[in-house]
Amino acid sequence: MQKSDLLDNKTLNWREKLHEVIYEADTSAGRLFDIALLFAILASIILVMLESVESFDNKHHNFLYVSEWVITIFFSIEYILRIISIKKPTKYIFSFYGIIDLLSTIPMYLTFFFVGTHSSLIALRALRLLRVFRILKVSRYIGESNQLIKALNASKAKIGVFLYFVLIICIILGSVMYFIEGAENGFTSIPRSIYWSIVTLTTVGYGDIAPQTALGQFIASITVIIGYAIIAIPTGIVSSEMTKKKVHLNTQSCPNCSYEGHKDDAEFCYHCGTKLN
Amino acid sequence: MQKSDLLDNKTLNWREKLHEVIYEADTSAGRLFDIALLFAILASIILVMLESVESFDNKHHNFLYVSEWVITIFFSIEYILRIISIKKPTKYIFSFYGIIDLLSTIPMYLTFFFVGTHSSLIALRALRLLRVFRILKVSRYIGESNQLIKALNASKAKIGVFLYFVLIICIILGSVMYFIEGAENGFTSIPRSIYWSIVTLTTVGYGDIAPQTALGQFIASITVIIGYAIIAIPTGIVSSEMTKKKVHLNTQSCPNCSYEGHKDDAEFCYHCGTKLN
Amino acid sequence: MQKSDLLDNKTLNWREKLHEVIYEADTSAGRLFDIALLFAILASIILVMLESVESFDNKHHNFLYVSEWVITIFFSIEYILRIISIKKPTKYIFSFYGIIDLLSTIPMYLTFFFVGTHSSLIALRALRLLRVFRILKVSRYIGESNQLIKALNASKAKIGVFLYFVLIICIILGSVMYFIEGAENGFTSIPRSIYWSIVTLTTVGYGDIAPQTALGQFIASITVIIGYAIIAIPTGIVSSEMTKKKVHLNTQSCPNCSYEGHKDDAEFCYHCGTKLN
Amino acid sequence: MQKSDLLDNKTLNWREKLHEVIYEADTSAGRLFDIALLFAILASIILVMLESVESFDNKHHNFLYVSEWVITIFFSIEYILRIISIKKPTKYIFSFYGIIDLLSTIPMYLTFFFVGTHSSLIALRALRLLRVFRILKVSRYIGESNQLIKALNASKAKIGVFLYFVLIICIILGSVMYFIEGAENGFTSIPRSIYWSIVTLTTVGYGDIAPQTALGQFIASITVIIGYAIIAIPTGIVSSEMTKKKVHLNTQSCPNCSYEGHKDDAEFCYHCGTKLN
Repeated sequence: MQKSDLLDNKTLNWREKLHEVIYEADTSAGRLFDIALLFAILASIILVMLESVESFDNKHHNFLYVSEWVITIFFSIEYILRIISIKKPTKYIFSFYGIIDLLSTIPMYLTFFFVGTHSSLIALRALRLLRVFRILKVSRYIGESNQLIKALNASKAKIGVFLYFVLIICIILGSVMYFIEGAENGFTSIPRSIYWSIVTLTTVGYGDIAPQTALGQFIASITVIIGYAIIAIPTGIVSSEMTKKKVHLNTQSCPNCSYEGHKDDAEFCYHCGTKLN
Repeated sequence: MQKSDLLDNKTLNWREKLHEVIYEADTSAGRLFDIALLFAILASIILVMLESVESFDNKHHNFLYVSEWVITIFFSIEYILRIISIKKPTKYIFSFYGIIDLLSTIPMYLTFFFVGTHSSLIALRALRLLRVFRILKVSRYIGESNQLIKALNASKAKIGVFLYFVLIICIILGSVMYFIEGAENGFTSIPRSIYWSIVTLTTVGYGDIAPQTALGQFIASITVIIGYAIIAIPTGIVSSEMTKKKVHLNTQSCPNCSYEGHKDDAEFCYHCGTKLN
Repeated sequence: MQKSDLLDNKTLNWREKLHEVIYEADTSAGRLFDIALLFAILASIILVMLESVESFDNKHHNFLYVSEWVITIFFSIEYILRIISIKKPTKYIFSFYGIIDLLSTIPMYLTFFFVGTHSSLIALRALRLLRVFRILKVSRYIGESNQLIKALNASKAKIGVFLYFVLIICIILGSVMYFIEGAENGFTSIPRSIYWSIVTLTTVGYGDIAPQTALGQFIASITVIIGYAIIAIPTGIVSSEMTKKKVHLNTQSCPNCSYEGHKDDAEFCYHCGTKLN
Repeated sequence: MQKSDLLDNKTLNWREKLHEVIYEADTSAGRLFDIALLFAILASIILVMLESVESFDNKHHNFLYVSEWVITIFFSIEYILRIISIKKPTKYIFSFYGIIDLLSTIPMYLTFFFVGTHSSLIALRALRLLRVFRILKVSRYIGESNQLIKALNASKAKIGVFLYFVLIICIILGSVMYFIEGAENGFTSIPRSIYWSIVTLTTVGYGDIAPQTALGQFIASITVIIGYAIIAIPTGIVSSEMTKKKVHLNTQSCPNCSYEGHKDDAEFCYHCGTKLN
């Protein structure tokens, strides 16, 4: 590419040049743009965090407010440039990253019209962290994560059923504990009891609500032991799913001896030596 | 079915029609009934929850009370219809879902005779959530869950032994901690100490009871490390169980001795030595 | 056996009869003895627990005290009978169960000489629960648990190394947190900080000690994420160990084609059909 | 070696003798040195811990202070001897253990110049525990741990991506909870909320911060269930990684194309079709 873009530089109109800088990273300008973007994203996240630390906000409120606007404008410009520099703007606007870019940029503007909304929407900025993947061009990692996603997709149904059962157990358990412990022990309502049973069964165990009665503690004990035993299930599902991936040989059978189970990169039958087609 | 039920419509007596609506979902009426049922179940669960939220109950007590009765009557009618519309009522009444339907319907009626019982039994309604499976006709999911159940059945004994050992450890540990920490540190009795040791070993750790003495904390540390190491066991059991499924041997049976479970690349029966075709 | 013991009954001297009743379960008397023993064990455990529940102890102290003695005497007699009824008493006395029987019987007697010791030793009774295995003749379960033990033995070294590293991490982490948080935030000493880091890394998290400073919370966050990632390791070890067991075919090779990897119950080579010897 | 060092004893100059004692363990002197070192290391760790226990420190401050110096001097001498006894000192000084030795020795000396620094650096001593590996010459264990490290390296990328996603989830979740719960419920800032969400998602759950609002508890419930489901992922990754090792293909290489990784029962090279012998 490097070479070609030296040749074509004259012929390229400004939009094509812009597209290359923003959407590609194989020109020095493109790389520079990506690095700038990377820092801008991290900066925007850190800003939101600092802003929420009262002691810090009080000291440097103005600095934070200004930087907020600087970053917002930077991302706004980037957003606009992305739209005008691409041939089919809609293709970008409705793409995954296009939506993220929009959502993570508008909050500041909303603060004009609706005071207070800003802070509660600002969290959307965290979504920008996903961009880091694309910027770092971590195709290898993406590959890895795709493999993860595949494994999860494959075991989606199983895990869904599992979680559904867990939920039913939690609802029943929560209701039961509500009537055993009652409001005086913190189980003030069934939803709250369900919250407790979920927190317990998943072995999180905050302790903000904990059974006080002997019977309640007995049931809790059984619950956690069940939880301890069934925590194995989703792990088992995913493990087996991922193990299968590792073990799985392709399904083509040898034209001569019709042997199956050849390695994915096999070119000859491991049994009779016939060329595989 | 659609077609046949257009033809037979005249010949079908009311009971057969009813059976088709209630027990099957391939007529528009049947589908409608299922959807109604689905909403009724969810409504009934949500009602119980809202009722337990005091603030809400105070505001809309009458509304909740009335809706309770509406739903209860709806399920009562459904229950009766199911009985009269089936050929062998006992077959339904003593079926898994038949019992659930009964248990989840009676509580309201009991409130007439025994005040207060209602609330404590109402939890049974959560059982109705299991119906959702049948209504959504999620045979695929059921299949998945069956696979889970199979894997769990296969490793039932192993997990049983494991949990039995865990329980013994917890009892011994609980007793020891009771004598080390004593009542002044919250370990007021051995059962309570066992409750603590279970909560600890399963890594739930509420913190409502926590060792205060140096020795107690030392033993607790060892305990949690043990728990951390052995949490691997049930997972290992289920994982291996589910992985085994993946590695499973082929299903062809020997033409001579009809033995099954040959290796995928077996050419001769491992039992009688007959050539496998 | 049933039959033979009808025949030999006369010829059997009292000791042989006794041995059969106590050590075997294939005579009605033997079965009866085992069931009695089973209940005695459970009773003794429940007694210890009830005793520790102050409210209950106050009410029924005498009853508990008497039953304690009844049970202790019962086990003492059993212990003596086991010794006199066996040919080589030492063989029983120094056997695993022989030691358990002794340890779980003496505490009550010690209360004569040393007041208070009783309660702290009584915990040893829980060991008797292991007897239940033998009484229930759960050879199948024993088999299962042996398999577990085998898997654990196989991965003993790995898990040992893993736990050693975890311990080092905990010690370093504990020391660091001690200097960051300091006594005012509950990290009163390094051992106590190590206790905290162990409780944290194993995801138990009582919350009796929790970081208060920003830096402390930052380190804690990293710690738990590490813990979250490495919790996979022991599981992975055991899973792979148990999976290996499942997959592993025996190592004998066919005398004819010297093929290996036959199923454990293979009688003929799956490749050439030769009889395996 | 034993024999040779009897022969060469005369010819060996003092430095070579020293090298043998310090760096090797096959002479009685070398073994003795190793054992002494082992105890010194454990002693130094225990000292640091005791020192931090105020009650103990007050009683035996002088004893602790003196022993500190004794140990420090012992390690200083060892460090110097290691340098002078080796041919290429730099090779040792910049080796992993060389750096550990230095870091774990200097703190005491620093206390001369900078008061207080000592205690905060003393934690570095824990690093010496790593030496135990080398002293115990646990090549077997090292082997095991290497296998662990290999498995972890193999799944490093996967786990990295996984942790990165977890982090993003935690940041988004933390921000959301900050705006839902607010400072009055302990979520005083976004970083602190993120700390909470990490502690929650990893199922540690201290409970020092816990959602109070209904909505907050609802989100927390969903969070922990997600955490419960995804805890399976790293385990799955490592399990499959380690299982893969077990299922590994044989190591024979093709005589023709020297390709490796043939199935154990392969008779022909899957790449070039040559008969494998």
